[in-house]
Amino acid sequence: MKKLELIALEGIPLIEEGDNLVEIILSALKGNKISLSNGDVLVVAQKIISKSEGRYAFLNDIKPSQQAIDLSIETDKDSKLVQLILNESKEVVRYRKGVLVVENILGLIHANAGIDRSNIKSDSDNPRVLLLPLDPDKSATEIRKEILKKTQKKVGVIINDSSGRAWRNGIVGIAIGSSGAEVLSDLKGNLDLFGNTLEVTEVGKADEVASAASLLMGQGKEALPVVVLKGLTESEDLNGAKALIRKPSEDLFR
Amino acid sequence: MKKLELIALEGIPLIEEGDNLVEIILSALKGNKISLSNGDVLVVAQKIISKSEGRYAFLNDIKPSQQAIDLSIETDKDSKLVQLILNESKEVVRYRKGVLVVENILGLIHANAGIDRSNIKSDSDNPRVLLLPLDPDKSATEIRKEILKKTQKKVGVIINDSSGRAWRNGIVGIAIGSSGAEVLSDLKGNLDLFGNTLEVTEVGKADEVASAASLLMGQGKEALPVVVLKGLTESEDLNGAKALIRKPSEDLFR
Repeated sequence: MKKLELIALEGIPLIEEGDNLVEIILSALKGNKISLSNGDVLVVAQKIISKSEGRYAFLNDIKPSQQAIDLSIETDKDSKLVQLILNESKEVVRYRKGVLVVENILGLIHANAGIDRSNIKSDSDNPRVLLLPLDPDKSATEIRKEILKKTQKKVGVIINDSSGRAWRNGIVGIAIGSSGAEVLSDLKGNLDLFGNTLEVTEVGKADEVASAASLLMGQGKEALPVVVLKGLTESEDLNGAKALIRKPSEDLFR
Repeated sequence: MKKLELIALEGIPLIEEGDNLVEIILSALKGNKISLSNGDVLVVAQKIISKSEGRYAFLNDIKPSQQAIDLSIETDKDSKLVQLILNESKEVVRYRKGVLVVENILGLIHANAGIDRSNIKSDSDNPRVLLLPLDPDKSATEIRKEILKKTQKKVGVIINDSSGRAWRNGIVGIAIGSSGAEVLSDLKGNLDLFGNTLEVTEVGKADEVASAASLLMGQGKEALPVVVLKGLTESEDLNGAKALIRKPSEDLFR
């Protein structure tokens, strides 16, 4: 029977800068009595990657430019936060009251550049925010290699984040980093039930895995930032999640 | 332990117009030795809904208008197919060589209005294509009610389809019909780990479930159009998947 199993690891502590995530994950696997097998995929929430990498900023340290002040009025957002969003972005894509969508420095089209204020220890006098990892594909690769070294298991690692979408309500999990897990499943040349070539050429598999894991992680105080996925039959894929980003020249919606 | 299990039912036959999907699904559940429990979610591929509802069209029956002929040249597509896409749409959203994105009659922003040519018995002299269900929320409701009647189990039903996206490569599963399963998870007023109110207000949960199930269904000759999802804790939700469609007036990307 074709089956997928997703298990959220319990007992992951609050992550601090410099924490060794692999040790924490391996210890949680043990605590949850789960053994890794070749082909398993670990989905790790962006938040704990960013926290372990110390990707924080303090809003009081930011001096807003005139552009940030203008945009903060148009979007009804804090001008220091807007400046930080601009610092983390290549381009403003769309904005209006309450909404600021940018292409961030990773190439992701993201509200507020993916900068996060929830589940972060902060001080109301000097608000602290969490930025995305500088290179999530690299972060995923390091975790994958370290797990291979320590357990001899070939697992895939996907770093997921929540993202808004064009056309549809609600955020969903997407893959912003990947290593060893299939990112885009290429169907070119595959046949359908009646022997016809499939028209669709690519499935955004890592995004589907990221969404599935997000169902368990939650957005609030669930504190379940690591999900193990078992049962996906796939080839080892050393492409990063960057392959999911559509080239600006091929993008009709930006 | 928080766990999700997704099981693709084996032995679902090729679906013909008029087939009773509920009987076929219940018989496959039995064959796969799976019992339904309250709170389970059945994800059913759009394709078998459309097939059972006889949502076919024959390209030879279509007479392309001048608009369809012009668009067929611009997009390098068959003019009869383009006419059919226009018939199934409210509005052309974007087009260029090889790509025709429309708002279809359900309100979905979809390449080719979601019209499908793979896995369909067809004749090269008179190609047959499959259209989306006329009212997938209603189709999901009928399946849910019939299952409740026959098994006394309260399950959710989600109808999924694959869709391209703005900004990202690869198609992913989305929910185009839903009944009894949580569609949008409203986090308004929920608190984070540090007691702060969450900024994000809604999660597109039915889309995440649709994506997760798509990982098992495949796009080719897998013939696994029904997936049972166990382990999602959720409230019964009688909103349809229409709730996932962003209002045009609130949509910055169309």
